[in-house]
Amino acid sequence: MSRIVYVNGEYLPEEEAKVSVFDRGFLFADGVYEVTSVLGGRLLDFEGHARRLARSLAELEMASPVTEAELLAIHRELVARNGVEDGLVYLQITRGAADRDFVFPEGAAPTIVLFTQSKPGLADSPAAKTGIRIISIDDLRWGRRDIKTVQLLYPSMGKMMAKKAGADDAWMVEDGYVTEGTSNNAYIVAGGKIVTRHLGNEILHGITRAAVLRFAREAQMEVEERAFTLDEAKAADEAFITSASAFVMPVVEIDGVKLGTGAPGPVATRLREIYLEESRKAAI
Amino acid sequence: MSRIVYVNGEYLPEEEAKVSVFDRGFLFADGVYEVTSVLGGRLLDFEGHARRLARSLAELEMASPVTEAELLAIHRELVARNGVEDGLVYLQITRGAADRDFVFPEGAAPTIVLFTQSKPGLADSPAAKTGIRIISIDDLRWGRRDIKTVQLLYPSMGKMMAKKAGADDAWMVEDGYVTEGTSNNAYIVAGGKIVTRHLGNEILHGITRAAVLRFAREAQMEVEERAFTLDEAKAADEAFITSASAFVMPVVEIDGVKLGTGAPGPVATRLREIYLEESRKAAI
Repeated sequence: MSRIVYVNGEYLPEEEAKVSVFDRGFLFADGVYEVTSVLGGRLLDFEGHARRLARSLAELEMASPVTEAELLAIHRELVARNGVEDGLVYLQITRGAADRDFVFPEGAAPTIVLFTQSKPGLADSPAAKTGIRIISIDDLRWGRRDIKTVQLLYPSMGKMMAKKAGADDAWMVEDGYVTEGTSNNAYIVAGGKIVTRHLGNEILHGITRAAVLRFAREAQMEVEERAFTLDEAKAADEAFITSASAFVMPVVEIDGVKLGTGAPGPVATRLREIYLEESRKAAI
Repeated sequence: MSRIVYVNGEYLPEEEAKVSVFDRGFLFADGVYEVTSVLGGRLLDFEGHARRLARSLAELEMASPVTEAELLAIHRELVARNGVEDGLVYLQITRGAADRDFVFPEGAAPTIVLFTQSKPGLADSPAAKTGIRIISIDDLRWGRRDIKTVQLLYPSMGKMMAKKAGADDAWMVEDGYVTEGTSNNAYIVAGGKIVTRHLGNEILHGITRAAVLRFAREAQMEVEERAFTLDEAKAADEAFITSASAFVMPVVEIDGVKLGTGAPGPVATRLREIYLEESRKAAI
């Protein structure tokens, strides 16, 4: 590792990229984040991520230490300094460092950290050709999943449960209905319709989700935004997930039940193509 | 501020006490903590906190970087170096620093951080004489509250809701039943019985809770461990909270409804006396 990391106005070697132990991101998970994909050295849907970041900050009454223009400049500078062709930029803002107290501190300067991860061939993932296998787990997360906070312990535990079960990822289920994947939105294709959970506090308002649903409707595909059950999913013709770094990824197996032919379906495959094509065109 | 802070084997001035931005405590809230009170320069119920820490770590399959004896030595060294007479020692262990991935990293060294907070007169809090006023809020936390993780954003938001409402703290309510306070266990006294929620994944297994219930039973008080509703609480003769740093603290008002005479009740007052007396005796 020899990346340059951005921390509160400075570009530092990653070994020197540190925050105070009093940072509320470290002590209280009092922080929000975004992950923006990079393809061909350009940022995918930066504006969408910046808009959601602003919403997360507002929901938590947290100040932003930078303007959107400054944020874009930092993203680009890091991509350039680290020579990222394909990969992602991770951004985190916390309420800053202050002596430990549950009450929000007054006058603390927010902390901002950005780093990159190079992922050569990100858009040509072999998994997109075979599809991924998922398991279902109970959704034990907090009630405001629409805010993109760093309270990611349970999604992280979920990925470990999937790994131990020999699967690639997990979908979370609440009251019988699928909410979303550990770090992605969940979709099924049934009766010729694309079904994905409606927006609310129960799921993250995916930036890739919004784009994919727009592209699907433009391509005359029928979209239904409603909760679906795990049983519906297992009986579906196809399933897939979307996220900033997985784009559109076919799901071919749920809890050991093969979907359709057990290979990526035509809707997921087509949406992935459209998403990548359109996103590359609009990348900045 | 001029404290000495312990970080991964080093005693550092607090300005230099830092962790990597890649620490999973910062990126994923993948860490656990304990707070041990100090009275007269000695630690209250250190063993209970060490035991709960071991449980939290085990639940998350996280390694401890220190033995219990080493942990005690660090606690004592920090109390001495910072001249803490009354106050607390905060301890946090995370899964350590690794490039960002939801999957637990292999071979990452856990991060351990300890710092002190001096709170002169901690046991003579004026609030103990007047009692505190609380509001009720929905419990939106994750489902494993028995693990003492740093996913504290919602409790922190809860304290802010209380502050904005002109109250001192908040009790969280789930399916009509009180779970616990933002950073403390909740109790009512009704029909001559002390009622507090039974242990489970829904609440933290308070170290002070265990001690107070033991003392109550030794003093021939009747204890009922079961969930109680918010309405029951509002109609109760008394209410109180317990935590490592608040000890036993009377609650005199819930959502604007005065309990009993509106002054601390005899049960809470007596339990506070017993707890402080016994804890001081057993402090190490």
